[in-house]
Amino acid sequence: MSKVSLEAARAWVAGVFIGNGARAEAARSVAAALVRAEAEGLKGHGLSRIPTYLTMLTSGKIDGAAVPTARRVRAATLAVDAANGFAYPAVDLALAELPAIVAETGIAAATISRSNHAGALGAHVEALADRGLIALFFANTPEAIAPAGGTKAVYGTNPIAFACPLPGRPAIVVDLALSTVARGNIVAANQKGEAIPEGWALDTEGQPTTDAAKALKGTMVALGGPKGTALALMVEVLAAALTGAHLAFEASSFLDDKGPPPGTGQTILVIDPAGFGHGAFGERITTLAGAIEAQAGARLPGQRRLALRQKAEAEGIALPADLVAKYGPA
Amino acid sequence: MSKVSLEAARAWVAGVFIGNGARAEAARSVAAALVRAEAEGLKGHGLSRIPTYLTMLTSGKIDGAAVPTARRVRAATLAVDAANGFAYPAVDLALAELPAIVAETGIAAATISRSNHAGALGAHVEALADRGLIALFFANTPEAIAPAGGTKAVYGTNPIAFACPLPGRPAIVVDLALSTVARGNIVAANQKGEAIPEGWALDTEGQPTTDAAKALKGTMVALGGPKGTALALMVEVLAAALTGAHLAFEASSFLDDKGPPPGTGQTILVIDPAGFGHGAFGERITTLAGAIEAQAGARLPGQRRLALRQKAEAEGIALPADLVAKYGPA
Repeated sequence: MSKVSLEAARAWVAGVFIGNGARAEAARSVAAALVRAEAEGLKGHGLSRIPTYLTMLTSGKIDGAAVPTARRVRAATLAVDAANGFAYPAVDLALAELPAIVAETGIAAATISRSNHAGALGAHVEALADRGLIALFFANTPEAIAPAGGTKAVYGTNPIAFACPLPGRPAIVVDLALSTVARGNIVAANQKGEAIPEGWALDTEGQPTTDAAKALKGTMVALGGPKGTALALMVEVLAAALTGAHLAFEASSFLDDKGPPPGTGQTILVIDPAGFGHGAFGERITTLAGAIEAQAGARLPGQRRLALRQKAEAEGIALPADLVAKYGPA
Repeated sequence: MSKVSLEAARAWVAGVFIGNGARAEAARSVAAALVRAEAEGLKGHGLSRIPTYLTMLTSGKIDGAAVPTARRVRAATLAVDAANGFAYPAVDLALAELPAIVAETGIAAATISRSNHAGALGAHVEALADRGLIALFFANTPEAIAPAGGTKAVYGTNPIAFACPLPGRPAIVVDLALSTVARGNIVAANQKGEAIPEGWALDTEGQPTTDAAKALKGTMVALGGPKGTALALMVEVLAAALTGAHLAFEASSFLDDKGPPPGTGQTILVIDPAGFGHGAFGERITTLAGAIEAQAGARLPGQRRLALRQKAEAEGIALPADLVAKYGPA
């Protein structure tokens, strides 16, 4: 498979979405996010999403014509309405407006409602960290994790992302879902007829299972058990209850054409490290990073992603052959 | 052991601290926190802390005369200086000032620097939730957890607490440390000469161990492995780097008279659910709670703590016999 530059890949992906009814600016936003995730090795949020996004777009679960709007409600708050379009243009809008707000207030938040799959969250918080800000991102996703002691999924895999600037170096980026593993691992094991490790999933009775088929009918295990489930509740409150979005168990799938728009939510918190009256942040974070990197085998989170991105920037990425056959080359 | 009312217990505990040099208001704040934790069954943050707090007080690791100060730096930020006194009066100061700020700004944050052991964090966030606010609390603690792939502790057990209002009912409260278990469990196993389960701790080589003595020389395992370690980094950044505090590996122990004041940090985030322009929060959180409680065996986090507190309010709590022998009865 021959590779194309990231710029060419973005133009090609945008063209596919425009050709299927998305407005140009939204298509470019989606293309940038998918190509970035692909370049960073985050395949589940990369070009593999194109077919499901197109399915959602053509079925109306994603409104390709939607234009997100933002309203500053209080001094430090922004309410963004993704209007049942793609999530990425709404995230872009929040990321564009938050830096000016936080410069005044020291901390600020944007909620995103009537939203959709927000992809690799690390890229969103990294964009704020690249502007010298600390950022947190909370998203809810369709049901996956049962409450502690329960058997039916109430929470999504509810990811948390975090980034902060590190003087003179790339930002530190954390991006994790609160399930022990991504559901895609169970789907893959089921397709191969393989067992899954204990600790990944529960069956419909709430019992641990190593049977991938039973796991797919059951629920995902939160990392660390009840503590992880409590964190999933926290994310559900911040990403969905606070934003007025659909709760995980009310949201339709991100992966098919069934039902109304998912209508999930996201909340972005941004903090100016200089907003608390001392100049110590740069020295403190540098000292912390130094203590981690001084240990053989330890490294800052996000380093693999960063290395893959640099490689992809130099070498390009491959486009999916089946889609190239259908839509033509880049 | 006869029990005394919570009010009598608070007065007695405050008297002990005043008798050992703490100013009265600080002593009352500490007493309220320790009695509350004891009443809620959180023994590790309850009256068992009195001897170690006294050791720190008399050695100067806690300045009993310190008066915390707060400075509003930006529209939505408050910088609190605990001045190497107890943490609780500084937390009280932040909790007193944050509601008026967040009413203007929709989201606000307080950093606390030159701080100390902040005890059971659930009580702090619950106080804000009782005022209709969503609250998050991040604290760093002396070194306990190694970075992923490393062998030396860099992070503390770095707790996260979260609370939100639930209309017509007690607030939902989450309070968890990012270690798989509290270190006290390993100390107890070591004293009894018992093995610990795999997954609690690593030895000095970074290998899993079931030997409690080796575990005490090694590091604590973060919940969920590398993901939990990444969350510990996030908390370290928010609680220490942002506040200009000592990092976990720089902080002296909360439990002895050795070294300078711990100088750890805490960050409190508070969000007004009404600050994003829609009135849906109350309905959304009620619907979420209903979906959890509809499942046999599932319950909202914090229910056990709440039940124990109600029992203690009715029946009182026991004071430590050795301290009563030394300081007299309540």
